[in-house]
Amino acid sequence: MRSSEMADEVTLYADGRSPFVCRVKIALNMKGIKYKNMEEDLQNKSGALLNYNPVHKKVPVLVHNGNPILESLVIVEYLDNVWERVPILPQDPYEKAAARFWAKFIDDKCIPALYKVFSSKGEEEQVITEACEQLQILEDELELKGKKFFGGDNINLVDIAADFIAYWLQLLEEATEMKLVTRSKFPKITEWAEGFVNCQVVKEMLPPRAIMLAYYKNRFGKI
Amino acid sequence: MRSSEMADEVTLYADGRSPFVCRVKIALNMKGIKYKNMEEDLQNKSGALLNYNPVHKKVPVLVHNGNPILESLVIVEYLDNVWERVPILPQDPYEKAAARFWAKFIDDKCIPALYKVFSSKGEEEQVITEACEQLQILEDELELKGKKFFGGDNINLVDIAADFIAYWLQLLEEATEMKLVTRSKFPKITEWAEGFVNCQVVKEMLPPRAIMLAYYKNRFGKI
Repeated sequence: MRSSEMADEVTLYADGRSPFVCRVKIALNMKGIKYKNMEEDLQNKSGALLNYNPVHKKVPVLVHNGNPILESLVIVEYLDNVWERVPILPQDPYEKAAARFWAKFIDDKCIPALYKVFSSKGEEEQVITEACEQLQILEDELELKGKKFFGGDNINLVDIAADFIAYWLQLLEEATEMKLVTRSKFPKITEWAEGFVNCQVVKEMLPPRAIMLAYYKNRFGKI
Repeated sequence: MRSSEMADEVTLYADGRSPFVCRVKIALNMKGIKYKNMEEDLQNKSGALLNYNPVHKKVPVLVHNGNPILESLVIVEYLDNVWERVPILPQDPYEKAAARFWAKFIDDKCIPALYKVFSSKGEEEQVITEACEQLQILEDELELKGKKFFGGDNINLVDIAADFIAYWLQLLEEATEMKLVTRSKFPKITEWAEGFVNCQVVKEMLPPRAIMLAYYKNRFGKI
């Protein structure tokens, strides 16, 4: 425990439905950090949120002893830097770089490709093909790794970055009746996702299934 | 000096024109790391490049003692991790997170907005407005900081991430006769860019002006 830890004030500006916010919540839970959750109404953002994140005006924002930290993966790295217990990033520099590479791949390639599938009108076949290509790269990485998680025997930054794929994607699929990740096509991702959402530190932070499903049905579902 | 350093083998798969490759070269230069430069023909990529970076098939790739490291900013962080002399990232966790935030902002917002300006046909006014909005955010940050560099008195990760804005942008502007960053509109960025390209460790690694100008005129210039 750091000597100053007793005095730590940690506040999370959040939207409980967001997979990006959930990344930070999982990290906070892994580290056992007590924090105050400030739920934002994204239609009517608080002055505090706009003040702390004037560039993107987005959640999550973590405020630690008055200092705002922005961008979900930057926040997760920050938490791992300041609270060393239960490491989230590998210690070895090469393994660390590899984890950052995969987390960035998920953010830059996978998630945009998957969002496109569910928000596209027309040209569906093309966007599905593209999304499956990205997923296949993750499938191959899990196969190559041969472990339960991207992190090995325990979850790490990459697993946390992929929380959308483990939980939200399945709900989106159900809401829209459009199945991308089948057990036969992506066996490793399927198995990994089951393992991930059943980790105690993850499970405790996921938004309720029913709420997410209703939200997605309303937003993306068929009428 | 790390005990193993004498045996380090460092190879950079590169395209000398790329601002992303140049980020890595600046970091290597700052650290005084000897490396082998493997210039790639991007129309006919080497088997080694495709083997080391099968996901993106892109430069830069840094290979350190047989281990490939991918993504320019991930490589810069790796170099900073392994070679501690002449730090590139701040040591303080909050300052470190802030640097990562700004580097990500440059990659996710500024550079795409700027590329759009020079590759767009029609709708030019809109894309120029958007690019200037992103630049204004950087201008304000420099103003707020009140220092020579984003890193303070010395360059850090953010300055390196912004190398495109300091050097390549000006050449693009000249090639296309379309000026975005004027001294009157963006005085801080102008001053910062001059300071940055005149740092010895940076200047030594920039591709020659004439070559870049000819390349951009050919690619983006008016006929």
